[in-house]
Amino acid sequence: MAHPLFHEKTPYFLHGADYNPEQWKRYPDVFEEDLRLMKKAQCNVMSVGIFSWTELEPEEGRYELDWLEEVINRLHENDISVFLATPTGARPAWMSRKYPEVLRVQADRTRNLHGLRHNHCFTSPVYREKTEAVNRKLAERFAAHQGVIGWHISNEYGGDCHCNYCQEAFRSFLKKKYGTLDALNHAWWTTFWSHTYTSWEEVESPAPHGESMVHGMNLDWKRFVTEQTRDFFRHEIQPIRKISPQAPVTTNFMGDYEGLNYWKFVDDVSIVSWDSYPLWHQRENDILTGSWTSMMHDLNRSLSRGPFLLMESTPSVTNWQPHSKLKEPGMHLLSSLQAVAHGSDSVQYFQWRKSRGSSEKLHGAVVGHDGTEHTRVFRDVQDTGEALKALSDIAGSGTKAPAAVIYDWENRWALKDAQGPRNESVFYEETVHDYYHAFWQAGIPVDVIDSVQPLQSYKIVAAPMLYMLRPGVKEALESFVAEGGTLLLTHWSGVVDENDLAFLGRPPLADLTGIVPEEIDGMYESQIRRAAGKGGIREFRYLTERSHVESAEVLSSFTDDFFRDHPAVTRNNFKNGTVYYTAGRVESAGVQDLIHQAAEESGVEIVPLPEGVTRQKRETDTGSYLFYMNFSGEEQVYSHPEKAELLFGSRCPLEKHGIHVWQVRKEEQK
Amino acid sequence: MAHPLFHEKTPYFLHGADYNPEQWKRYPDVFEEDLRLMKKAQCNVMSVGIFSWTELEPEEGRYELDWLEEVINRLHENDISVFLATPTGARPAWMSRKYPEVLRVQADRTRNLHGLRHNHCFTSPVYREKTEAVNRKLAERFAAHQGVIGWHISNEYGGDCHCNYCQEAFRSFLKKKYGTLDALNHAWWTTFWSHTYTSWEEVESPAPHGESMVHGMNLDWKRFVTEQTRDFFRHEIQPIRKISPQAPVTTNFMGDYEGLNYWKFVDDVSIVSWDSYPLWHQRENDILTGSWTSMMHDLNRSLSRGPFLLMESTPSVTNWQPHSKLKEPGMHLLSSLQAVAHGSDSVQYFQWRKSRGSSEKLHGAVVGHDGTEHTRVFRDVQDTGEALKALSDIAGSGTKAPAAVIYDWENRWALKDAQGPRNESVFYEETVHDYYHAFWQAGIPVDVIDSVQPLQSYKIVAAPMLYMLRPGVKEALESFVAEGGTLLLTHWSGVVDENDLAFLGRPPLADLTGIVPEEIDGMYESQIRRAAGKGGIREFRYLTERSHVESAEVLSSFTDDFFRDHPAVTRNNFKNGTVYYTAGRVESAGVQDLIHQAAEESGVEIVPLPEGVTRQKRETDTGSYLFYMNFSGEEQVYSHPEKAELLFGSRCPLEKHGIHVWQVRKEEQK
Amino acid sequence: MAHPLFHEKTPYFLHGADYNPEQWKRYPDVFEEDLRLMKKAQCNVMSVGIFSWTELEPEEGRYELDWLEEVINRLHENDISVFLATPTGARPAWMSRKYPEVLRVQADRTRNLHGLRHNHCFTSPVYREKTEAVNRKLAERFAAHQGVIGWHISNEYGGDCHCNYCQEAFRSFLKKKYGTLDALNHAWWTTFWSHTYTSWEEVESPAPHGESMVHGMNLDWKRFVTEQTRDFFRHEIQPIRKISPQAPVTTNFMGDYEGLNYWKFVDDVSIVSWDSYPLWHQRENDILTGSWTSMMHDLNRSLSRGPFLLMESTPSVTNWQPHSKLKEPGMHLLSSLQAVAHGSDSVQYFQWRKSRGSSEKLHGAVVGHDGTEHTRVFRDVQDTGEALKALSDIAGSGTKAPAAVIYDWENRWALKDAQGPRNESVFYEETVHDYYHAFWQAGIPVDVIDSVQPLQSYKIVAAPMLYMLRPGVKEALESFVAEGGTLLLTHWSGVVDENDLAFLGRPPLADLTGIVPEEIDGMYESQIRRAAGKGGIREFRYLTERSHVESAEVLSSFTDDFFRDHPAVTRNNFKNGTVYYTAGRVESAGVQDLIHQAAEESGVEIVPLPEGVTRQKRETDTGSYLFYMNFSGEEQVYSHPEKAELLFGSRCPLEKHGIHVWQVRKEEQK
Ligand SMILES: [Zn+2]
Ligand SMILES: [Zn+2]
Ligand SMILES: [Zn+2]
Repeated sequence: MAHPLFHEKTPYFLHGADYNPEQWKRYPDVFEEDLRLMKKAQCNVMSVGIFSWTELEPEEGRYELDWLEEVINRLHENDISVFLATPTGARPAWMSRKYPEVLRVQADRTRNLHGLRHNHCFTSPVYREKTEAVNRKLAERFAAHQGVIGWHISNEYGGDCHCNYCQEAFRSFLKKKYGTLDALNHAWWTTFWSHTYTSWEEVESPAPHGESMVHGMNLDWKRFVTEQTRDFFRHEIQPIRKISPQAPVTTNFMGDYEGLNYWKFVDDVSIVSWDSYPLWHQRENDILTGSWTSMMHDLNRSLSRGPFLLMESTPSVTNWQPHSKLKEPGMHLLSSLQAVAHGSDSVQYFQWRKSRGSSEKLHGAVVGHDGTEHTRVFRDVQDTGEALKALSDIAGSGTKAPAAVIYDWENRWALKDAQGPRNESVFYEETVHDYYHAFWQAGIPVDVIDSVQPLQSYKIVAAPMLYMLRPGVKEALESFVAEGGTLLLTHWSGVVDENDLAFLGRPPLADLTGIVPEEIDGMYESQIRRAAGKGGIREFRYLTERSHVESAEVLSSFTDDFFRDHPAVTRNNFKNGTVYYTAGRVESAGVQDLIHQAAEESGVEIVPLPEGVTRQKRETDTGSYLFYMNFSGEEQVYSHPEKAELLFGSRCPLEKHGIHVWQVRKEEQK
Repeated sequence: MAHPLFHEKTPYFLHGADYNPEQWKRYPDVFEEDLRLMKKAQCNVMSVGIFSWTELEPEEGRYELDWLEEVINRLHENDISVFLATPTGARPAWMSRKYPEVLRVQADRTRNLHGLRHNHCFTSPVYREKTEAVNRKLAERFAAHQGVIGWHISNEYGGDCHCNYCQEAFRSFLKKKYGTLDALNHAWWTTFWSHTYTSWEEVESPAPHGESMVHGMNLDWKRFVTEQTRDFFRHEIQPIRKISPQAPVTTNFMGDYEGLNYWKFVDDVSIVSWDSYPLWHQRENDILTGSWTSMMHDLNRSLSRGPFLLMESTPSVTNWQPHSKLKEPGMHLLSSLQAVAHGSDSVQYFQWRKSRGSSEKLHGAVVGHDGTEHTRVFRDVQDTGEALKALSDIAGSGTKAPAAVIYDWENRWALKDAQGPRNESVFYEETVHDYYHAFWQAGIPVDVIDSVQPLQSYKIVAAPMLYMLRPGVKEALESFVAEGGTLLLTHWSGVVDENDLAFLGRPPLADLTGIVPEEIDGMYESQIRRAAGKGGIREFRYLTERSHVESAEVLSSFTDDFFRDHPAVTRNNFKNGTVYYTAGRVESAGVQDLIHQAAEESGVEIVPLPEGVTRQKRETDTGSYLFYMNFSGEEQVYSHPEKAELLFGSRCPLEKHGIHVWQVRKEEQK
Repeated sequence: MAHPLFHEKTPYFLHGADYNPEQWKRYPDVFEEDLRLMKKAQCNVMSVGIFSWTELEPEEGRYELDWLEEVINRLHENDISVFLATPTGARPAWMSRKYPEVLRVQADRTRNLHGLRHNHCFTSPVYREKTEAVNRKLAERFAAHQGVIGWHISNEYGGDCHCNYCQEAFRSFLKKKYGTLDALNHAWWTTFWSHTYTSWEEVESPAPHGESMVHGMNLDWKRFVTEQTRDFFRHEIQPIRKISPQAPVTTNFMGDYEGLNYWKFVDDVSIVSWDSYPLWHQRENDILTGSWTSMMHDLNRSLSRGPFLLMESTPSVTNWQPHSKLKEPGMHLLSSLQAVAHGSDSVQYFQWRKSRGSSEKLHGAVVGHDGTEHTRVFRDVQDTGEALKALSDIAGSGTKAPAAVIYDWENRWALKDAQGPRNESVFYEETVHDYYHAFWQAGIPVDVIDSVQPLQSYKIVAAPMLYMLRPGVKEALESFVAEGGTLLLTHWSGVVDENDLAFLGRPPLADLTGIVPEEIDGMYESQIRRAAGKGGIREFRYLTERSHVESAEVLSSFTDDFFRDHPAVTRNNFKNGTVYYTAGRVESAGVQDLIHQAAEESGVEIVPLPEGVTRQKRETDTGSYLFYMNFSGEEQVYSHPEKAELLFGSRCPLEKHGIHVWQVRKEEQK
């Protein structure tokens, strides 16, 4: 994905918010006051039209677009660009009443009533017709507008629908995938519990009061939901692209939202954008929250294959988390620039102005109910705007990561659905994060990818808990290592194929790892199993495997109970490369040992950093930018990069919640 | 509300129970034995007919009232009065079967099957017709009966119904309230998420699978449920009042039951009655349970605007609480007389005799399955009867409270529904209780009122967490203070209007408080923020506000993190009065500091009392009665009131679970 | 129940598994490899055909039985017997689609969709017709097959259905039981809450949105479900018995599964079989898990009135418990032989081979996905096979228990449904287990029976928490004691009759116990009430009764609060026997005191054993076999039995998870 077209119009960082002036039509002064405040807050972009359908089409077929044109014109006159939204995230009440088929049907086969948002069927012909019509009207009027730099398609797609239209579409999806019922029966292993289908009509989506335990079906349902949602997304783009074939489009993702495999969307968006709502100050310190948030940014940068957009974040608090915790001084700037450090070309907020009523009136906004610029929040936003201006040369630059962590939606679906070694939790996300965190703490830039992305560009790849091996993945991992790469694998890997059918016979990863797992122990919460090796004693929790070694070198062995002397961590040479294997979930320090060893052996630079401080990098033709960010909750001192110039931040030390940006020019780099 | 008519007939304390002889028709000796035991237990009133509909109308239109007449006659002959119930708390099975519309529809739009109780639609024309008919029959037969001193209308009204009749009634309610859809759309701020209604038919009640987050709608639904229930209550009274226009009527409330705003019922009941089921002995001691129960009594006395009735309480245990904990010796008498201390003119029980079967057969009763008077429970009831006789001059007397705590149903609904600073809990009820408890511990009589009751008679008013300011409330508070009153306000006040629309611009209470809150922090459970002032260090939890002072004097300031030096507790002079403001939920001792300071400044008497002992007062033309009650779990010594005579209890000390009643005659008072 | 016929064909221990070769039709080598591995694993029996309906009848009326015959033939040729299953545990998808009436209706009146298993109506005429037909086909083809030693009817019957057919059947059941509505109304005490039924059509099964609190109805519904399930079981057997009147039949029970009163099935099964899945290694040690599992075995042996079968157990882990904890070395053999020690004539597994897909692919199996014998699990199974061979003389032998513990399904239903002294939990199962455990630790063999089984053969009977006294039970207990027996009773006994109607007047057990309970205290979790007596101080928790003594001797009295000096444990002489009474749930040591005292007084042998070690006994004409089993988690030393020969295990000490079997020949016994 190249930089989207709008980058030419706006070759700087975008700074702005979701904006809903249609809520304030009865308050004539508000709009002009908003323009004044936007400029004061250093904002240069607004997302408008999200959830405006009833204002745009107050009765069926009657469109009212003038108010929106006025809004876009006035913003444009004030040098504020617009992401124009299609309004399909919520539909008018008249539509739900006249065409109940547009409303979603839950897994229990209850059809929803009108209400909330994201409550529509992606398959309904009526909903598709109405969507096409309103999007076409918007495109006809605004596609060529100079103030519109891109299209914000719908809002946070998610959820599924079990109506008859969707059942029919699911069956078509399966027919296309499997060809014959016989193939489907084998893939889903339906002979078990006499589930063999003898007619396509017998196939229905998973249901709490129907089928819920055929894992292959659950998996295909999730794939279908992704495909159907992407199809709806394409259906939304069509009328826009018909009028303006180059129109930049995006849709705001939700981090690693489990319900949609975002990798299936990346060819259809012009740039990836996402909504980030970390829970700052929830724990003793913000280190793990910081590195998790970094991981989400890196995932979205990897999805975007270049810069991405931070489409939403809160200028203060949300109103839907259990606690609406205020950000401590400095945290707004740090978390905003954290996105930039990882590749974002924007810092955008939900929302510009707090609504007066309904469910999000207490959600943070740049402008509160007081309506003034005299708040800590407003000043934080202003400061962020200033910072983005100061750093504006960085906009558009990329990141070259020597390492990748595999975090795979389909693996995650299968792994968590499997009734297996621990039904309480297998901690997949947490185990992936263990590996990400070790890179983050070592200052090593990382891509976060799924298992079918190309690996050639990396020196180190970590693929924790790769339970499912999709077609070609085993071969790709082998060829990556054969050519000299270092691969880190863990317990509970290589168990099933893409349909959740277990591999039979010799484990598929045994050649790579040189070790064969025999049994996996689902440990109780309180249980610890220790291993000893060169690095000392390390503790394993939740899951451990009892294995035997074939060709691998044993780095550490378990010391407890009947696991005693069985391998805990191993290292295997495979052709020109190396494979590390960890036979269970080891404590964080154990993962850091491995990442250090792997980095040293692969010639990847490790940056010595205080705990809780990370360094991230963006690169341009003329040099690179180094972001030092402090999530430790305390002031920290670090070794300044050599031959570098401090571009942002006051020299030393790195304060609590502090961020320093250094510029290293190319000539000085070599 | 003046004393109801029945007070003339029964100018003493009522002592009795719910009585269901219809359950024992097959056991001919039971009724006569009951009469014997009732007299032995010093009972002089019974509530009969509750849940007797099928016995009264075993098939449609065929009434059998003779058995009931016999019961009332025999009770009357034995000097036992009757509260005669309308039987509408549960309906006959034949009715549910023939007219399913009488059954309630849940929020998920499932129509209930026959079963349980309180399972009927308040709107159903058939249910109203059947109700009117049976109530009329009862009134025709019994309205003039000398033994019937009042009508017990239905039983513990509660719950809601979402059937089509109720939907239609809800729309009528809204049309009447708003006039136009446009006004409704503004009040509910429906432009948000494209919820604008374009036709009245689109409006439906809140539903888990429909609309649940339009706060204005949720609020109006709750108001509608109150209105519809009151309308049904009026419908129930009508046939009785037609025959006997002065008939005293009541319906048993459930303390501060959240589902109904009882203030809307007070003009329609002749006297307020309620059912009290405290969880004694649940904690280390009974102090908080004691003061919470006192608060409920004071709420009901305030609702009743004079004496009220304790309509139900358990003589021993309930069977529906998680643990059916026995009352310790003394506790039955203490908790019975506690009601009297706060203004009750009765002590009544659920139930007279344990039923043999079905769900409440293990609920406490005066007479157990053994059928004898030889139990601790029976003796406790007897003793209570003796005590009520000894105190009988007090019956009918009132209470003059110099202070009030505002505990407002509509505020509570809005506050708890708001998705805001803490979605786990904002602790509204607990914060109100903090203030009540401080008065209770200081021996200051308190009214518990909602925000639209008159304030002129008070010297001190505490209005904790007054998130919603209904019309006129701001003005009423200002005029109360202007005329010299002392007002205590807290964090999270003055945020929204009566429709949950946020106030814009300058906060409405800023003039009163002299302080402007900027941000509110939804703290984690484990978090504490300290403040220091003259009184020492106080801890704040759950919610704290970061504010700036305008005219107020700062009594204490926060000392932690970025709240340091921001005001925690302030005092502002407003015209002739004083306003205290607490910027968060402070520990109990912090509230007690304030109440003491406020009482001293206002000339309200503070009674020095050991912790866990309270003093309450009832007043007559000839003097007053002082009730000293010990909830501390230990023997306590207190300073006896001067020139007073010990009317009940043995002089000194005040034993564990003990109660002393002193009489102060008028001539001695001045 | 005599030994079933198959015992003549197979006069040794059965060792085998559930086997589903129909899952592997596409994998032609698997079946032959299975035969090789079965023989290697010392297996001599397989359960086949469970869940094979679609393979047997792929379309309505077309049967395919040849593959099954081939399987049975080949197994038989290899000396492996077969339990042939009827396939009704799950039905073909074509059937659910064509006849939705076969699918179950939940209590909320939702009809299930096709899916899962155990999802059919036991009443549906269509389901009965289809079941009869397929069972008849199987019987016609296989009833005379030499390899088929018995019929495995369906699988783990359970659940209920609320469809209209079932409603009608419920009403018929009630008409038969009560004759008149009047009798039903009295039994259910429907006058309460106006529930009186005036027509049979008004009666409907319990529902969350209908009736749920009429305890008599809940009880009758549970009885109906048992009766209807047994009727379906009989319906399943009929076509088999028509062809082969002596065919041995069983159906696999689930321990003490609450939903079915298995005592109602014992006359219809040829031998009781059950599925045992203990949670080993969940606690600090396995003592309580061990004795609970023993109790389940003894319950099933008592149900079987002789040897029973362990029909399922896992060779390694399950996949449905929260944690799939590996068995420690030794535990597989110990838990397998534990079944034998308690009377099992088999050790069978679920499952022979792990399926490749769907929900149980990760459930433990003798053969894993690797497909080899080179696993710890396979070796454990082999060792168990060897052990069973070595012990094969024991097969068919019985157990004579001098003591019994009453564990009664109907009592349990009533006790747990009652809204009473503790709604969180009254700990019925745990309290029964307290008594069982004391016998187990003392090496005293115990029957586990319900309250209507004959008691004459016992010296000691413990009947904890016998809340419900079914007709004749009081008399049976009295005559047991009158003839010299020792009876142990506890709190919360003799409260209601068989319809959950409370006994009125003098408590029915007072003559036996010589003590009258007055009140029962539902204690909070943290509360302890102590009692002191000869044996020292003992702690009571959860429930305690305040009672007064009539004729009993007080062994210990409470020392705390207002229970002080009220009796805690008493002993009463009743005619020639003795009754102990414990007025609450006393700690384990308190129960052990009583069991020791009772055993000594009754001349029942107490075996001195280290904590966590038990001794169980099986007896033959020629002598007896003593099983010493160590669940303590540590090596233990015990006094070897005299004049006995060690048949299994290495002499001394008894290792962790160890088992020793000693033979005592008859001549040496006296
Ligand atoms: Zn759909
Ligand atoms: Zn209704
Ligand atoms: Zn049924």
